[in-house]
Amino acid sequence: MELVFLGTSAGMPSKFRTTSSLVVNLSEERGTYWLVDCGEAMQHQFMKTPLKPRKIEKIFITHMHGDHIFGLPGFLGSRSFLGGTEKLTIYGPSGIREFVQTALSLSRTHLTYPLEIIEIERGVVFEDDLFVVTADLLAHVIPSYGYRIEQKPLEGKLDIEKALAFGVPKGPLLAKLKSGSDVVLEDGALVKSADVTSPPQDGFIVTILGDTKKCDASIQLARHADVLVHEATFDDDSQQLAASYGHSTFREAGEVAKKAGVRHVIVNHISARFTKLDEQRLLEELKVSDRPSYIADDLIGFRLTRQREIESFTF
Amino acid sequence: MELVFLGTSAGMPSKFRTTSSLVVNLSEERGTYWLVDCGEAMQHQFMKTPLKPRKIEKIFITHMHGDHIFGLPGFLGSRSFLGGTEKLTIYGPSGIREFVQTALSLSRTHLTYPLEIIEIERGVVFEDDLFVVTADLLAHVIPSYGYRIEQKPLEGKLDIEKALAFGVPKGPLLAKLKSGSDVVLEDGALVKSADVTSPPQDGFIVTILGDTKKCDASIQLARHADVLVHEATFDDDSQQLAASYGHSTFREAGEVAKKAGVRHVIVNHISARFTKLDEQRLLEELKVSDRPSYIADDLIGFRLTRQREIESFTF
Repeated sequence: MELVFLGTSAGMPSKFRTTSSLVVNLSEERGTYWLVDCGEAMQHQFMKTPLKPRKIEKIFITHMHGDHIFGLPGFLGSRSFLGGTEKLTIYGPSGIREFVQTALSLSRTHLTYPLEIIEIERGVVFEDDLFVVTADLLAHVIPSYGYRIEQKPLEGKLDIEKALAFGVPKGPLLAKLKSGSDVVLEDGALVKSADVTSPPQDGFIVTILGDTKKCDASIQLARHADVLVHEATFDDDSQQLAASYGHSTFREAGEVAKKAGVRHVIVNHISARFTKLDEQRLLEELKVSDRPSYIADDLIGFRLTRQREIESFTF
Repeated sequence: MELVFLGTSAGMPSKFRTTSSLVVNLSEERGTYWLVDCGEAMQHQFMKTPLKPRKIEKIFITHMHGDHIFGLPGFLGSRSFLGGTEKLTIYGPSGIREFVQTALSLSRTHLTYPLEIIEIERGVVFEDDLFVVTADLLAHVIPSYGYRIEQKPLEGKLDIEKALAFGVPKGPLLAKLKSGSDVVLEDGALVKSADVTSPPQDGFIVTILGDTKKCDASIQLARHADVLVHEATFDDDSQQLAASYGHSTFREAGEVAKKAGVRHVIVNHISARFTKLDEQRLLEELKVSDRPSYIADDLIGFRLTRQREIESFTF
């Protein structure tokens, strides 16, 4: 699983950051990408990566502010222009359907792929054999959702070479071993599942929040997550502004990370008032969490390793 | 008058061009800018120039395709975010009001300035003491307008120093001279208006077209213009495609320029299939017009001098 930050600004683009959008690259896990939010110029940023538009399978919108949705019509049209045929599903708050349908219809944008739009409520918004996605309402000036993306536990892997070496014949006994049962061979020998399979593995958890004040829903959504992506629009000096605009400070993002017991916290949605020169100080404010902490930039990626560590990369 | 091309691509952004938008800088003539079309990421491109968002007084939309309008909601919101209070007027085809109002309302974008939206028909769409703007329908797959922007003739300028030197006293006689009348002084001397005023000057004409095939309306709109901005999506080899998609080739843009007798032609809306390496050949195709001819790039400006020549510049 990789997170690729396309846009990390707050409210409007700045010279160094464009508006919110974030790719969750699940190529390894399900052969597709998910997108969280789609601010204006998302498609422009996406073009600067080696990622493929047609592989975006789902888009999760956190809230209806323009800096999180104004890139949708253009991206949807271009995905079609480029010949995409795979179905795309958009999840988002009430209003997202009207926004998308009005923009596509008035601009005569005809899509070459099926588009499904699901207006969500709190709770499980998507589940299949591999993943479950839960949404909850945060604390912002308009309804704003956070998403908890949980990968389901991975079955142990059967080491076929090893099983054959133990004398297990090809066929149904291999499947039994894979499913966790021990088997007895024709010659009476016992082969234990644990000896020929790797142990089942926990899936990862990544929690990605929309704009919000520090709130309990964030902590619940982020509980024991491998990665929490939290907004950090303001700093300690502008905490009053943060509260009145329904946003968080770097320190508050760190506090949520700490209370939720996450492994890593990455902050985005950074006000244009801050420059590179402020980052050391902002990182100190964020680090109340005592967890590995990062301030996202546009076009930076973070890879979650099998050891649940984080590696960053660029293109 | 300056033209600043923000986006010059066709259909969707490419690596080198973003979607259509063009600033007509009228700082000298009326202290404001006008904008023609507003594709996605217009505000991102605008930020790369020294121009000020609040000075955009009017936006003329040629047609409702997404690559010409999807930057509107974001720009309108950001102009507000930055504290703009000056009124803004949008002119465009039927549907533009619903598009803008739906996007602003669903995204809870509250503007700090008055916004007027005028759905136009063929004919004069704006006129005041300084300018008249005429629109006509072109030949595209959906209704697409071209705009002819005419500056009204400029009165001659009175050379006050010279008039005083002729013995004209300060007061109403100066105004008479300025208005073109000759005057007789108390001592009986005749002072001719022509001797103390520069001659009235023609205003400039700039014609900016939406997507279109070669058509008569383009020629009428561009008649004797100082500058014609014409689309050129395809080349000679892809003329059939141009015709079937309602677009023009470089050669057809040149033919329109020639028939209309314009002074200069600049083409935009360039397909991503062409690279810098093709430009020499494309310019040859365009130059059927025998007029000075230019292929626009993103973030290139063209200044019309008092001698009706063109100078290009970048930022």
